[in-house]
Amino acid sequence: MQIVFALYDQFTALDAVGPYEVLSRLPGAEVVFAARERGPVRTDSGLTVVADAAFEEIDKCDLILVPGGPGTREAVLEGQGLVTWLRLVHPTAQWITSVCSGSLILGAAGLLKGLDATTHWSVRNELEATGATYVPERAVFQGNIVTAAGVSAGIDMALSLAARIAGDVAAQAIQLLIEYDPQPPFDSGSLAKASPETIGFLTENPSAG
Amino acid sequence: MQIVFALYDQFTALDAVGPYEVLSRLPGAEVVFAARERGPVRTDSGLTVVADAAFEEIDKCDLILVPGGPGTREAVLEGQGLVTWLRLVHPTAQWITSVCSGSLILGAAGLLKGLDATTHWSVRNELEATGATYVPERAVFQGNIVTAAGVSAGIDMALSLAARIAGDVAAQAIQLLIEYDPQPPFDSGSLAKASPETIGFLTENPSAG
Repeated sequence: MQIVFALYDQFTALDAVGPYEVLSRLPGAEVVFAARERGPVRTDSGLTVVADAAFEEIDKCDLILVPGGPGTREAVLEGQGLVTWLRLVHPTAQWITSVCSGSLILGAAGLLKGLDATTHWSVRNELEATGATYVPERAVFQGNIVTAAGVSAGIDMALSLAARIAGDVAAQAIQLLIEYDPQPPFDSGSLAKASPETIGFLTENPSAG
Repeated sequence: MQIVFALYDQFTALDAVGPYEVLSRLPGAEVVFAARERGPVRTDSGLTVVADAAFEEIDKCDLILVPGGPGTREAVLEGQGLVTWLRLVHPTAQWITSVCSGSLILGAAGLLKGLDATTHWSVRNELEATGATYVPERAVFQGNIVTAAGVSAGIDMALSLAARIAGDVAAQAIQLLIEYDPQPPFDSGSLAKASPETIGFLTENPSAG
């Protein structure tokens, strides 16, 4: 199974790396990190990763994952060749997935019209502007289109997807392997749970974003 | 605050990228990905990341994070220059941390003798051989040495560490930003919780590892 992580400048590393640690461990998985051109791709917080392939080298694949991040806005405007590639290649894929604001790129390619979908809480209005209905869930399955909420939600989405692809036991084995037994020290991971003080901190400290 | 992610061939990407998404968002954080030499570093499942600095360029820093992965064994044997660098530089750091089998590298540098520590469940005996006492917790704080359990546990550890560095509200704001409200579809993330069938699957499908 060929799994393409579709990258662009200023994506958020964990959006891709969380699902990668799950999906790359599926029996028979072959992962490809692709971008406009081969070579280094800068993420949003300092890490640089390497694209093994250019989009134009890939005309079919089994699974596509589009991460989110501050670079989404430029990617949507076709500054990165990603929307055109998605439009061409998505019919060949069994699964088309996004994490965080990556959903806006699926939306720009016209893939979310009339569907329920999710995204990072901060861009839920932009998601609805693509014709989707925002649902505040960790992962939303609509046929072969799967969207996940912000950043870390990609891990939950990927485990659900792994179970559909290879069965519950395989997914549970991967969960054990990456020791995904989350015990966050706080319960502040969603807009519904975070305190007004926490939300206010983000507004006053954009560097934390 | 300068935060060094100390990389080596065949590390596990999520071990570093989970904490990176948390710690890089601390006010004043400056992240550096370092390795034996500048340039591409291959992770264990296909992704390549870029080291911005060679170990020999860094003679002090505020926080060190050592990820785990299958490459740990060679790194411990000093194939990657990491143990020597750790011995030299750790006295300058306020925090010395590991994720997963990265603890074995701290151990090889002599930093865990007589301490409680944690690691990936599969290498708990190797951890004890370094003089540490294995504790099956997500994160173990012992003075300025912090060890996390396998792979995804680095996110929990980093949030606890972020709170000690910048306060609870800052850590909670980062948790909200990365939407870390985990809802795994299964409860199979630790050896105590996984079924015998799941553990058996890992034995029979080493490719899942």
